[in-house]
Amino acid sequence: MSRDLTIAEVRLTPILVADPPLLNTQGVHQPYTPRLIIEVVTAGGVSGFGETYGDTKYLELARPFAERLTGRQVSDLNGLFTTAEEMAVDRARVENAVDVGGLRGVQTADKLRLSVVSGFEVACLDALGTALGLPVHALLGGKVRDAVEYSAYLFYKYGAHPEGVASEPDDWGEAVDPAGIVAQARRFTERYGFTSFKLKGGVFPPDEEIAAVRALAEAFPGHPLRLDPNGAWSVPTSLKVAEELGSVLEYLEDPALGTPNMAEVAAHTDVPLATNMCVTTFAEIPEAFTKGAVQVVLSDHHYWGGLRNTQQLAALCRTFGVGISMHSNTHLGISLAAMTHVAATVPDLHHACDSHYPWQSEDVLTERLTFESGKVAVSDAPGLGVEVDRDRLAFLHRRWRDDDGSMRDRDDAAAMRVTQPEWTTPAVPRW
Amino acid sequence: MSRDLTIAEVRLTPILVADPPLLNTQGVHQPYTPRLIIEVVTAGGVSGFGETYGDTKYLELARPFAERLTGRQVSDLNGLFTTAEEMAVDRARVENAVDVGGLRGVQTADKLRLSVVSGFEVACLDALGTALGLPVHALLGGKVRDAVEYSAYLFYKYGAHPEGVASEPDDWGEAVDPAGIVAQARRFTERYGFTSFKLKGGVFPPDEEIAAVRALAEAFPGHPLRLDPNGAWSVPTSLKVAEELGSVLEYLEDPALGTPNMAEVAAHTDVPLATNMCVTTFAEIPEAFTKGAVQVVLSDHHYWGGLRNTQQLAALCRTFGVGISMHSNTHLGISLAAMTHVAATVPDLHHACDSHYPWQSEDVLTERLTFESGKVAVSDAPGLGVEVDRDRLAFLHRRWRDDDGSMRDRDDAAAMRVTQPEWTTPAVPRW
Repeated sequence: MSRDLTIAEVRLTPILVADPPLLNTQGVHQPYTPRLIIEVVTAGGVSGFGETYGDTKYLELARPFAERLTGRQVSDLNGLFTTAEEMAVDRARVENAVDVGGLRGVQTADKLRLSVVSGFEVACLDALGTALGLPVHALLGGKVRDAVEYSAYLFYKYGAHPEGVASEPDDWGEAVDPAGIVAQARRFTERYGFTSFKLKGGVFPPDEEIAAVRALAEAFPGHPLRLDPNGAWSVPTSLKVAEELGSVLEYLEDPALGTPNMAEVAAHTDVPLATNMCVTTFAEIPEAFTKGAVQVVLSDHHYWGGLRNTQQLAALCRTFGVGISMHSNTHLGISLAAMTHVAATVPDLHHACDSHYPWQSEDVLTERLTFESGKVAVSDAPGLGVEVDRDRLAFLHRRWRDDDGSMRDRDDAAAMRVTQPEWTTPAVPRW
Repeated sequence: MSRDLTIAEVRLTPILVADPPLLNTQGVHQPYTPRLIIEVVTAGGVSGFGETYGDTKYLELARPFAERLTGRQVSDLNGLFTTAEEMAVDRARVENAVDVGGLRGVQTADKLRLSVVSGFEVACLDALGTALGLPVHALLGGKVRDAVEYSAYLFYKYGAHPEGVASEPDDWGEAVDPAGIVAQARRFTERYGFTSFKLKGGVFPPDEEIAAVRALAEAFPGHPLRLDPNGAWSVPTSLKVAEELGSVLEYLEDPALGTPNMAEVAAHTDVPLATNMCVTTFAEIPEAFTKGAVQVVLSDHHYWGGLRNTQQLAALCRTFGVGISMHSNTHLGISLAAMTHVAATVPDLHHACDSHYPWQSEDVLTERLTFESGKVAVSDAPGLGVEVDRDRLAFLHRRWRDDDGSMRDRDDAAAMRVTQPEWTTPAVPRW
């Protein structure tokens, strides 16, 4: 019976997880961020787990989607997409929802569907691998490396969330200037061994962020450095930054918003441009690739529609001579395991992947994944190779259940308004 | 032990199979054509089968490649490519080898490697599926249809191979004019239920082939029709044919040779252009897609590098709004099963696939695959769902072993010279 791969049950568990006060161009991370944990249980009694965004609009689609899966084979991954396409999505609801969507690129019904499917796809792969005794990477054609390299994801941050708002403490301290960023980077290298550094920019005027990157270059000579202002800059500002930092940057990430602006920047600098904002769907690829707007696509299996779609994206990039690496939003260990499995199968992954994971003090795993020399070892255990702590999952779910609604939809601008009531999402280009 | 997926042994069996005297622009099919049957045996005692081209240059690469696979996991499909890339290939040997390469597009060392890998990839998928109790389509993400549609592959043909040359008889008769082609098409519909028709052209002057397609349109009104001269025409001739047949053609296949010529044809006609000659590798895609040179890519898993690469090609086509269907060279039932499994997983396969299979009176299977209403049912049995007849395989191998070398490398021009000593491969454009 353990080999019966029919989906008997699907369990959806929305949770809220602690998030430090990390700054980006839209505002600041809330004290808690929503995630959705998806569990697929086969008739053979095997469970598989996936995670994706947990904001309300994702939950609203995930619930009816889950209902359609029982009775199907857990191996029927292509069917997830055709099922999702059949589901009605209120376009206005999607496109107008409060969200940090600006940080995740275009918001469409199709992309919402793919973001939901991705969590189910990972859960199905985990269940399938567990039932068959094969690691997820083997279901994806097999690993071509034994460990996947990640970068230190540096953030400007406050020392703590606002007083009077429930939150969990973090021990990272404040970082609002070059010295703070370098100290944060040192801590990342000491704790995790990372050798590449990405700074989330778009927070302070470009000159301050240029100074921070220069300080990193001085502190870590020869190490790959990246700066990502989330499209906050004009084309001239982007070119100015590219000129000033060209000698130390591995790539500049989304300096300006949209493919035409990125193409204009790319046409006038030799600094490679990376993106997780102007190329976030297959539909956006032809224009961006034919215009030479981007040199590295930062895939995110959550919004590209899962691990197999990520492999297809990698094939597209390879074919057009565009590099590939990985983007990350706030995520837990299930997704880090999923990212590691798929990254292990992509032959031409030549940049360290991004991950927020070190910023997440909470997880749903019995044992956290670890970084050794900046790398996560590729698990050869069946499935994703992670174990979910059901007590911990229930605890984080209760936090979501008991929330008054203020944290259930991530809204970095609203979080900023707690201390800066006048704050609105800055108009782009901000500088 | 049956679950031990380690590759314990790889068996290569070159064979010669009967082929009718089918005509194309380069000449005529030999009485026997070489194929290579690949058997991968796991430590658990499970066998998986694949087939690919059997000409000498493929065998020369397949043998050392096979030696490198023992001890590896049958699930390590990505590793097949990295292993193949490590192998030295004599470029001059590849590019100058006698071959019907012109009919298979560009000939390079990389493409030779992929053509060899494809047979091993299918064998590994067959073994993996058999060991796990899953059909190959489930290893590819699951079928999205229960049957795959094929087209009737019409050929001008002689009634028999030349006297004095060993050959097997066929009962299809001669077809060298419109009436013969229509009679052949009727027989295809009666025997197999095909409703789409492809005529292999480039054999007679275009006016004769136009007349044949018109006769088909009259005999089968409203049915999808295709004409494929294998690049034998100039751009003006291609446009003339497109104009004359535009109202009845589903698409025109490789009218002219090379992407620049195809792009010029495409720019001046509304008839969609299909190809298995100017887009045969991932490297050829960017130029062809950005120039709008082709509207349908006819994939062939043999030279694209297997079933998973075919899925990646399909993703590329989908992304660029290019259609996809399948090309076929002479092949047996193992490959037809492989084609059917992968075709079943491609959501936007909107054209009937090509297959030479009905022309092959011989096979290595205990039970031939069948066409019902022009379709092959997608097997849900473990692996490919076919069984190899080892006596039959041995018989066809003895034919290869005992051959004096004249049939071991397919050479349609040489076969033509048996009756037309002056024949040389026509210069292109022929018309």
